[in-house]
Amino acid sequence: MDEFEIIRRHFLNTTIYRDDVRLGIGDDAAILRVPPGQELVISVDTLIAGVHFPEDLPAAAIGHRALAVNLSDLAAMGARPAWALLALSLPLADDEWLQKFARGFFALAERHQVALIGGNLARGPLNITVTVHGLLPSGQALVRSGAQPGDRIYVTGWLGDAAQGLQQLREHMQITEADNCVQRFCFPEPRIQAGLALRGIASAAIDISDGLVADLGHIVQASGVGAQLQVERLTLSPSLLHYKSREQALNLALAGGDDYELCFTVPEVRLPLLESQAHAFGCPVTHIGEITASKTLRCLKDDSTDWPLPFAGYRHF
Amino acid sequence: MDEFEIIRRHFLNTTIYRDDVRLGIGDDAAILRVPPGQELVISVDTLIAGVHFPEDLPAAAIGHRALAVNLSDLAAMGARPAWALLALSLPLADDEWLQKFARGFFALAERHQVALIGGNLARGPLNITVTVHGLLPSGQALVRSGAQPGDRIYVTGWLGDAAQGLQQLREHMQITEADNCVQRFCFPEPRIQAGLALRGIASAAIDISDGLVADLGHIVQASGVGAQLQVERLTLSPSLLHYKSREQALNLALAGGDDYELCFTVPEVRLPLLESQAHAFGCPVTHIGEITASKTLRCLKDDSTDWPLPFAGYRHF
Repeated sequence: MDEFEIIRRHFLNTTIYRDDVRLGIGDDAAILRVPPGQELVISVDTLIAGVHFPEDLPAAAIGHRALAVNLSDLAAMGARPAWALLALSLPLADDEWLQKFARGFFALAERHQVALIGGNLARGPLNITVTVHGLLPSGQALVRSGAQPGDRIYVTGWLGDAAQGLQQLREHMQITEADNCVQRFCFPEPRIQAGLALRGIASAAIDISDGLVADLGHIVQASGVGAQLQVERLTLSPSLLHYKSREQALNLALAGGDDYELCFTVPEVRLPLLESQAHAFGCPVTHIGEITASKTLRCLKDDSTDWPLPFAGYRHF
Repeated sequence: MDEFEIIRRHFLNTTIYRDDVRLGIGDDAAILRVPPGQELVISVDTLIAGVHFPEDLPAAAIGHRALAVNLSDLAAMGARPAWALLALSLPLADDEWLQKFARGFFALAERHQVALIGGNLARGPLNITVTVHGLLPSGQALVRSGAQPGDRIYVTGWLGDAAQGLQQLREHMQITEADNCVQRFCFPEPRIQAGLALRGIASAAIDISDGLVADLGHIVQASGVGAQLQVERLTLSPSLLHYKSREQALNLALAGGDDYELCFTVPEVRLPLLESQAHAFGCPVTHIGEITASKTLRCLKDDSTDWPLPFAGYRHF
C-alpha cells in the first residue's frame, strides 16, 4: 500500500464540508477563502512518540491529541476552528493503527467542523505535526499581553488530571478506559466554547499545556505584570483526589501539563459580562487569583503564606 | 539552553516585516489578514533525515530545502509566498547547526519576503515540517485538473540535476560546493517568478518533486487526459552531461526527483501570451510534448518509437 492509497483510504472519507474551502486535498496546495471582516489565526504543534506521549498510547488517543492540542491554541485566542493540515511521519503503514488514528482525529474534527485541507505522509520515526487555522472578527483575538494589575485570574475546568493520567499510563501501561485521569490525558477537550465566550471579556488568555504556573508565567511576562495565585482555590476533580492527597493534587494542578484548560484574566469592570456568559463556557470557571503590578508570580496558601513552588514546565533541551 | 532561548537566538532575528501579519511569533497563535479579493493557498511538507536527504547534509542546505520544497508548491499554484510556520524536531540543540540551519532558511525566506509566523521546537529524531501560505487574486490559481487535449506541455529549467547531485552526495559524501548538480540538490530554487508569470496562461501546473513522469502523471490523472512526451527535447544541463551519457541523463530527467522545476500545460490559443511573458520566468522554458485524449502517458523518441520508461516516483511504504 503506497502513501496515495493510505491517504485515500483513511484521510479523505470525511463528512465535513465548508464553503470557505475552494480546493481541498489533492493538488499542490489547498485554496481557501477568508470572509471579509475576519482575521485568520494560525498555529502549529508537534507530538513525538516517547516525548509527548508514551510510545504505545492507543492510536485513537494520538489522533485526538494531535488535533486537540492545536485546537486548544485556537481556543486560547478566542478563534473558531476552520481548517487543519496533518503532517504524519510513521515508521510503518499499519492499516489498523491508521484507521484508529484517523477515527480519533476526525471524531474531534467533526465536533468542531474542522476541514482537513492538506497534509504530508512519509516514512520515519512517529511524528505528528498539525497546523490549524481559525477565524475571528477582526481585532477580537485574545492575546497574552493584555493583563492589567487588578484583573482577576480564572481557569476553566480541572487541573492536574492529565498529569496524573500520564503517570498512571507510564506506571502500568494498562489503560482503564473508565479512569477519568487517563481519559483526560488521552482525550483532552479543547475549550473552544469557552474561548468564543471570552471574546470581549478576557483581557488575556493562554491554554495550559506546560502547567498553570509556567503558562500563567507567559501571560505575566507578555503583559509586564505580576500575579498572585490562591492555590487552595483550585478546583480538583474527585478522580485526582482518589489517587493523591490534597497537597500532592494541588502541586500537580500547578505544575502538571497536558490539561489544555484555559487560564485567562478579566478586568473588574467586565465581571458582570463574565457572569452573564457563565452558561456559554461548557465547563466550570474558577477565580484563582489576581494580577498585580509587582512583576513576580506568587503562589499563596489561604493563610497568605507562600505555597512552595514545584518544578514548573517541561524543557525540551 | 532551553527551547525558548533557541527560538529567541535563532528564529526571531528576521528582517522581514509584512503588514498582513498582525501578530507573529510569541502568542498561542499568529494573527493574519488576507487582503480583500485575495485567496489563500496553503501547503505542508516534511523533510526527514535519511529519507528525504542524507543524514549529514549541511545544515544550511536542510534549512533552505525545508522552505524551498514548500515554496515550490506555492509556485505551482501561481501564488505569491506570504507566511511560513516551522515545526522542527531535533535530537540535540547544537548551536552551530541551528545557526546554519536558520541562515539557510531565512536567506531564502528573505528573497521571497516570507514571514515566519509560528513554529514548534521539540526534542526528537530530525524532522522538519514547514507549512506555507501564499496569496493570489481570487480564481487565478493554477491547478492540476485543467489540462485539455491539444495543450502543449512545458517544463522550466533543467531536470535530472538534483538526482545526480543526490547520487554524488550518497557516494562520496563530500560536498564540492562548486558542483552544480550537488548545488541543485542542496539549494533548489522554487520557481516562484515562473508561477506568477503563468497566471492566466497555464491550463494546469505542478511542481516536479517525484520526477517528471510521476508528476505529469498527476496532471494527466486529475485532468482526465493523456500525454505524449518528446523525451529528446528535454533540456539537460552541461553539469549533468559531464557525469552521465545522454541516455542516462534523459532517464534521470524523466524519473529523478528533487528538481522542483514546474511542469505546466498551455492551450494553443495562449501561446502568444506565453511568448510575451518569456522574460518574466527567470529561467528557460522548454516545450516537451502535448496533452492527448488517450488517457495514457507515452514517452517517445524523436523517431516516434517508445522510449522505455524507467522506474518513476518514490514510494514511502
